[in-house]
Amino acid sequence: MFFEYDPDPDAPVSQLVCTFGGAAPVAQIAPGTFLSTWTRDCFNGTVRTVDDLSSQVTDPRCLNPQTGPFYVEGAEPGDTLVVHFVSITPRVSWGVSTTVPFFGALTSTPRTAMLQPALAERTWIYDIDPAAGVVRYQARDSAFAVELPLDPMHGTVGVAPALGEVRSALTPGPWGGNMDTPEMRAGTTCYLGVNVDGALFSFGDGHARQGEGETCGVAVETAMDTVVLVDLVKGVPTPWPRLESDGFIMSTGSARPLEDAFRISQADMVGWVAAELGLSMLDAYQLVAQTTLAPIANVVDDDYTCVAKVAKAHLPGITPYGGVHARLRAAAAAWRHPGR
Amino acid sequence: MFFEYDPDPDAPVSQLVCTFGGAAPVAQIAPGTFLSTWTRDCFNGTVRTVDDLSSQVTDPRCLNPQTGPFYVEGAEPGDTLVVHFVSITPRVSWGVSTTVPFFGALTSTPRTAMLQPALAERTWIYDIDPAAGVVRYQARDSAFAVELPLDPMHGTVGVAPALGEVRSALTPGPWGGNMDTPEMRAGTTCYLGVNVDGALFSFGDGHARQGEGETCGVAVETAMDTVVLVDLVKGVPTPWPRLESDGFIMSTGSARPLEDAFRISQADMVGWVAAELGLSMLDAYQLVAQTTLAPIANVVDDDYTCVAKVAKAHLPGITPYGGVHARLRAAAAAWRHPGR
Amino acid sequence: MFFEYDPDPDAPVSQLVCTFGGAAPVAQIAPGTFLSTWTRDCFNGTVRTVDDLSSQVTDPRCLNPQTGPFYVEGAEPGDTLVVHFVSITPRVSWGVSTTVPFFGALTSTPRTAMLQPALAERTWIYDIDPAAGVVRYQARDSAFAVELPLDPMHGTVGVAPALGEVRSALTPGPWGGNMDTPEMRAGTTCYLGVNVDGALFSFGDGHARQGEGETCGVAVETAMDTVVLVDLVKGVPTPWPRLESDGFIMSTGSARPLEDAFRISQADMVGWVAAELGLSMLDAYQLVAQTTLAPIANVVDDDYTCVAKVAKAHLPGITPYGGVHARLRAAAAAWRHPGR
Amino acid sequence: MFFEYDPDPDAPVSQLVCTFGGAAPVAQIAPGTFLSTWTRDCFNGTVRTVDDLSSQVTDPRCLNPQTGPFYVEGAEPGDTLVVHFVSITPRVSWGVSTTVPFFGALTSTPRTAMLQPALAERTWIYDIDPAAGVVRYQARDSAFAVELPLDPMHGTVGVAPALGEVRSALTPGPWGGNMDTPEMRAGTTCYLGVNVDGALFSFGDGHARQGEGETCGVAVETAMDTVVLVDLVKGVPTPWPRLESDGFIMSTGSARPLEDAFRISQADMVGWVAAELGLSMLDAYQLVAQTTLAPIANVVDDDYTCVAKVAKAHLPGITPYGGVHARLRAAAAAWRHPGR
Repeated sequence: MFFEYDPDPDAPVSQLVCTFGGAAPVAQIAPGTFLSTWTRDCFNGTVRTVDDLSSQVTDPRCLNPQTGPFYVEGAEPGDTLVVHFVSITPRVSWGVSTTVPFFGALTSTPRTAMLQPALAERTWIYDIDPAAGVVRYQARDSAFAVELPLDPMHGTVGVAPALGEVRSALTPGPWGGNMDTPEMRAGTTCYLGVNVDGALFSFGDGHARQGEGETCGVAVETAMDTVVLVDLVKGVPTPWPRLESDGFIMSTGSARPLEDAFRISQADMVGWVAAELGLSMLDAYQLVAQTTLAPIANVVDDDYTCVAKVAKAHLPGITPYGGVHARLRAAAAAWRHPGR
Repeated sequence: MFFEYDPDPDAPVSQLVCTFGGAAPVAQIAPGTFLSTWTRDCFNGTVRTVDDLSSQVTDPRCLNPQTGPFYVEGAEPGDTLVVHFVSITPRVSWGVSTTVPFFGALTSTPRTAMLQPALAERTWIYDIDPAAGVVRYQARDSAFAVELPLDPMHGTVGVAPALGEVRSALTPGPWGGNMDTPEMRAGTTCYLGVNVDGALFSFGDGHARQGEGETCGVAVETAMDTVVLVDLVKGVPTPWPRLESDGFIMSTGSARPLEDAFRISQADMVGWVAAELGLSMLDAYQLVAQTTLAPIANVVDDDYTCVAKVAKAHLPGITPYGGVHARLRAAAAAWRHPGR
Repeated sequence: MFFEYDPDPDAPVSQLVCTFGGAAPVAQIAPGTFLSTWTRDCFNGTVRTVDDLSSQVTDPRCLNPQTGPFYVEGAEPGDTLVVHFVSITPRVSWGVSTTVPFFGALTSTPRTAMLQPALAERTWIYDIDPAAGVVRYQARDSAFAVELPLDPMHGTVGVAPALGEVRSALTPGPWGGNMDTPEMRAGTTCYLGVNVDGALFSFGDGHARQGEGETCGVAVETAMDTVVLVDLVKGVPTPWPRLESDGFIMSTGSARPLEDAFRISQADMVGWVAAELGLSMLDAYQLVAQTTLAPIANVVDDDYTCVAKVAKAHLPGITPYGGVHARLRAAAAAWRHPGR
Repeated sequence: MFFEYDPDPDAPVSQLVCTFGGAAPVAQIAPGTFLSTWTRDCFNGTVRTVDDLSSQVTDPRCLNPQTGPFYVEGAEPGDTLVVHFVSITPRVSWGVSTTVPFFGALTSTPRTAMLQPALAERTWIYDIDPAAGVVRYQARDSAFAVELPLDPMHGTVGVAPALGEVRSALTPGPWGGNMDTPEMRAGTTCYLGVNVDGALFSFGDGHARQGEGETCGVAVETAMDTVVLVDLVKGVPTPWPRLESDGFIMSTGSARPLEDAFRISQADMVGWVAAELGLSMLDAYQLVAQTTLAPIANVVDDDYTCVAKVAKAHLPGITPYGGVHARLRAAAAAWRHPGR
């Protein structure tokens, strides 16, 4: 199945979706659907030149506008929604990053409240060259420039939260949301626990690339053309978002302080490995402790995100969720976009 | 220059060095010396079989016994001590890991104090096969086993702290100490700020491998035969330990909560990149934010450690500390151990 | 003006309000109204004897059911809602506290995730004697008993959050919510920033008394008969909930880690004192630093809450919000409940 | 017994004691001794006028100079040192507070590292009027002034740490040290676990008053004339410093993040109450949760400090440490200072 969803590029801010939960679905899709769509950049395209300051040109009521939500047929609480990223391609030839007053890891913020004045606000524009596979950084105060690898990903991927909550698209949590991990790239499968009928899946916040931690709070932000292959695992819950690539399984945790995000991701990985390999909890704890990578995702959002990442080579025989990643990967490889 | 230091394998616990600071030097070496020595495992060899429980067989007055301290000629406060790891080789064919009551990231501890009883204490013994380059994990409660890559490193590397402090070898800080980062492997150079005359450098806590975060609190612990090439950069301070490999520069930070360890490491990297590349602070903040890796080192010690790691390929022209890493790397490649 | 709102005691859980935001108002009131109503206990009355375990008898979809929300006429974003607590009286002669698996400050939780099993679940029933002004603690495992002062208060007081969010009644934040501070007692005025038209004010979670921090996660929970006098300050925003009693002004902050809750409350107090007394920011910082009390409110909810509390005697001349507290206090003293 | 110790007021900085541990005792005293001495202010008297900036006039090698250490006869590891504060009297008629660059709760610091410039450095001088029982605050940027209650206390009280560590007098921990709690006033008894023979007790950092949290990092600092009555409880360990006044028992915890300081203090209180009253651990958890006060001590030092404080009225029959507080209190009341 194939479904193309083309958002209105001229929609007013009042019609944009800037939350997980709280919005009516824009479309209904069946498991097994290739969904082709595009996402706005985090500033909704308002920051276009180095002279645009985000605090002046963006509408604070809607950062990280989402594409969606999509109602997935048959999805019910207790199921796991499976989102395989088939392709993520910058939609324009430029990306933008900024400092934002009182936002980022190396500044005080409204929550880590201090009395110092804000850091200077500044904008950087990156050229994106998909053919060469690079983005181009240009210093603002000197001639220094460098090409960095293009590595497109989505900062926000999620479903409606549990218990009737509606959460800002700037926040990560058990529903996914603004996790801001560079692991969310094409070729990766994301597993999300379903909290409401239809799951109400949405995504956005495309990054041409980002460092781990998203230190200044803003990655190389850009609009994306993205294709996902959506599937559903019935009757299997997923407490926190998990990812799978060809080489790795990953658990995520989002919380403050950062050690709690680490703990959530590692405890989830221990439980996952124990269940998949039939290990006792202590044996899984030991195996994970010696094999895990622990790349930080973000240290800037309302909660911070850590990833626990273990190579499948260290977990011989593992086939999470019945091998759905391999099946979707094969399906994606065999598929051609009808419109291209 | 070459210096071999062979600690007394039968030294009583009362003669072991278990702190940074507070101990008399065991030897004096000049900058430019290849220092060949060996280190005890973190349990001082007391945990040897799966039936040995660390809480019963180890002496709690001395965990992570150090080799050293070494007095480095000419080192004064305000200088940077340079320690290049030439080789790190397991000294025995086995390693050990354990759970320790109320120690580790996924248990309450005396500082994250809770009322729950301790997790069960258990010991795992790993076979180490240097020829095959693997360590062998064997589950305790099932037949599951797997070979993992051998990746030898030192958990503790440090100098005497500032302001007359003496710190346990279980703790990391600006003096280095128990950072527990797997980046501290052969081929890497470690930069440490000097706080006292002679620097009083020591190291220990060899790991045949560890996961990032050292989740259960104990890596694959083993005694190590290690050669370091020691050098000195006069008049250049280093506030927090830094590392350099052929491909990367790295800053470390150690603190609680974990976000402060991240902040320290990232702020140090921003300042380092700005100074080396002549960038403004904001331009360096932006460049680091889009290029840094942020692997966690430990989330179990008295302070937690994060690493900020940026590829030199993203920092064209960078030659930190006047290119000392490249010089030491070349010297190490040209050198042959006199005793082997 | 007087308005009595009598909730349906037999309402099914599906009709209870368990969030801030996301619910239609139950009534509309004008500023100046004495609102008389009652609130359910946090368990909706399901835990009644020491043999009732909350994890078995409560509906996890609705803890801390709210009374409200009330639409306050004329309240618009940017205004401050003023809620003066005229009286808070236990509605029944018993209160209940419990341990809840994986909830509380001295246990691991889903966010401070660990591998230890849960603490035992247990229930304590307290006799409440309003005439004597005491609640009676009775140990479960011994004959020890003691009478403690009755000190009725509300754990949750809040309005609809900003940016379209809907938040669980278990969570505190800038909108108020589950702050769980014992300062929210009769005679106190609470100031809340308005985020949506009508403010949508609700409250609940009555406690016959609680310790600071609410260490085990559950206070002496009971249903309350409560009268509030509602008012409105137009055009004055309040970023975080503030309280005022006859002797003190108080700022609150809710965040993790706990130091951020402290920082928010102290920074708000510094700004408040500076504005009210015409002090420079540094002079206000100094004055607050030497005069503030810093009682912890809760260390168990989704975010933790701290209170900054300064005696008015140390702030000569202060009359916050134009002296509304004194006016409401006088109005409350002059008022008689029509139904009693 | 009575012992007067009069430090050399002209001692050079190199002879001051600025650590816990690592210093030879200045005198030996027996349990039961009334020790009369005086302490320097935290800046060693260098900041005397509003034109003195601490960063320019103080020697950074020694802040919080200690009086001591004193070797207490018979004190051995596993014992509890008992320090009853008989009197604490300002030695001069002025106190000083300052902002210090990158120090304090509402500014970035070297550990909560950020890129913003420092807050302005400024000094406030307070008149101290012991007869009137007040200190006088005078704003720097306006005419505002106010008299605040004099409430003398010591910020640092401690013994030598365990495991051979030597810790800066700016840091609190299990050994006591820089806890900065206003509860450490005359009439209070402090219990400290002994780690080394003789305990090596010292104290300093007198405050004419401070707010809870010591928000700006510096209290109303002044030199103090102090008398303590020292005693010893053999064979009873004390893991974290505890305090006792006529009305309250108190546990302290020092850690980061602040919730861990809270957890330590509350867990210690639960264990203490259970042991003293013969309650089960769960019953004590419940009783403490409903009765504890939780005043924050400091949120500015290398670790933060919380106090758990429970009224003895809520713990009928409690006589901690065999009633030593009452005995010392009576002895102090009956005693007259020989030199006054």
